[in-house]
Amino acid sequence: MAGTHGNEVNAPWLFDQWQKDPGLINCHGLKLHSVIGNPVAREANRRYIDRDLNRSFQPELLVDQSLADLELNRAKELLDLHGPEGLRPCHVAIDLHSTTSAMGNCLVLYGRRPADLALAALVQGALGLPIYLHEADSAQTGFLVEQWPCGLVIEVGPVPQSVLQGRIVRQTRLALEACLVALANVRRRQGRYPRQLVVHRHLGSRDVPRDDSAQPQAFIHSCLQQQDWNILSIEDPLFETVSGAAHPERLDEGAAVVFVNEAAYAEKGIAFSLCCREVWPMQGTWIRALETLMVEDVQRGGPL
Amino acid sequence: MAGTHGNEVNAPWLFDQWQKDPGLINCHGLKLHSVIGNPVAREANRRYIDRDLNRSFQPELLVDQSLADLELNRAKELLDLHGPEGLRPCHVAIDLHSTTSAMGNCLVLYGRRPADLALAALVQGALGLPIYLHEADSAQTGFLVEQWPCGLVIEVGPVPQSVLQGRIVRQTRLALEACLVALANVRRRQGRYPRQLVVHRHLGSRDVPRDDSAQPQAFIHSCLQQQDWNILSIEDPLFETVSGAAHPERLDEGAAVVFVNEAAYAEKGIAFSLCCREVWPMQGTWIRALETLMVEDVQRGGPL
Repeated sequence: MAGTHGNEVNAPWLFDQWQKDPGLINCHGLKLHSVIGNPVAREANRRYIDRDLNRSFQPELLVDQSLADLELNRAKELLDLHGPEGLRPCHVAIDLHSTTSAMGNCLVLYGRRPADLALAALVQGALGLPIYLHEADSAQTGFLVEQWPCGLVIEVGPVPQSVLQGRIVRQTRLALEACLVALANVRRRQGRYPRQLVVHRHLGSRDVPRDDSAQPQAFIHSCLQQQDWNILSIEDPLFETVSGAAHPERLDEGAAVVFVNEAAYAEKGIAFSLCCREVWPMQGTWIRALETLMVEDVQRGGPL
Repeated sequence: MAGTHGNEVNAPWLFDQWQKDPGLINCHGLKLHSVIGNPVAREANRRYIDRDLNRSFQPELLVDQSLADLELNRAKELLDLHGPEGLRPCHVAIDLHSTTSAMGNCLVLYGRRPADLALAALVQGALGLPIYLHEADSAQTGFLVEQWPCGLVIEVGPVPQSVLQGRIVRQTRLALEACLVALANVRRRQGRYPRQLVVHRHLGSRDVPRDDSAQPQAFIHSCLQQQDWNILSIEDPLFETVSGAAHPERLDEGAAVVFVNEAAYAEKGIAFSLCCREVWPMQGTWIRALETLMVEDVQRGGPL
């Protein structure tokens, strides 16, 4: 999936080139469907039309017949097409995003699903990409990949919204190809798993300080800019006022920051998110979950 | 003027803070009106609603009674309020913008109006800011400041659209304050003019190569990224295809590039603009034009 957000233009452009030249990305024998997530928003060069498509995959929203905005309809349509019970079902969803934050090339997981952890471990083992594990946040739910048996987000930045940039296209392609190699290897029972997985586990998010009319009173402190993945000290100032003074707000504990100043998160009240770096030993249950999905599928002759 | 484009959020935020604390920016005795150019687009977090406000100040559009979209109405309203014949007229318009291009802090002039050149020279003398002189381009017309007797754009980047960033706020404020000091000095006949003005004169713009359906076939070559103001060699590749090959298109001559990969210019068919660096000796006619505007005004007791 590319273009789940209509103004993240690099991955959809890569898909366009791939469609023109099917040999551009090696599928390694996997059966793939490449889909533009939100073509109407892409055409309008906006993140979304009615609501964020990548927050629209909430079970209660998807079954509510009274709601019929553009993104909810598209979410249902994507599931009808390629969901596990869909017309041309997929077992794995890889959703390609970009961000204005200096996240580099990274993976985002939603929760601790064993097959997701196995796939992320394979990609991290191959490329060393950092992993942001988003979980336990009731304010941010309904992510696309959660509706597939296995899935993750490839997130690349920094790049402004609506800007096509070579570095972002190349990094997106590299991470996608690593996912495909990993899945193809698993399918042949040749997955090369690392001994451990390094995750950055989501702890929460912080908004900029706001006044009574909800307007920002301060901006993200310059010392936080481009510090994504780095661990802050409890003395580090988080915000800065126009007069140059550090706002008194501090972190309760040392934590790493991610998604610092992502443009689209301002409306969600997120100036940056906090996470905790953890090293998890590789688990056999993760490996079996992914192998079950991919190898049984080979036996059934089914799709990716 | 701030927020002429609704998703350039730094200057409008600076204006909000200035409104809360009128001492934040020293007016040096000048009478100022600070105005949000396109408040509806700002609220919608979009560059514009119906058309680009900063291309809407074309005389033939402004007199056409059959056209009444949001931005044309706003253009007329701004002129009715603060135009030279308006309710609270201003002699000088300073329009604050930001860009996704790595332009740094700079000034943009439209044409060679003597008073504009004098004001730009004063600011360049004080801060050393580069000047992009936009002229003779029939595809890009109708800029806001052209409707005032004197005016220029302060352009700051790189910053993604919709992102509030300390560096951009600080640079915007610095350039605005330099303009105010310069104008106040001129009003007291104490303008400190440099001996020469360095301008980057607009030569034209280049679009990315497109296929038959107008989709980009290539992206801006990585060696051009963040090279704003630098002079290219005729051997430098301009564009790069997804396979990593340099597209054959080249420049006819060595020229400096500006506005490399500005997000909002993709729809205008501009991947970057080309300009020619020139050094112009300071002209007495420029100085007299600005002094006439500012000093006569003192004698009349009129506004800035």
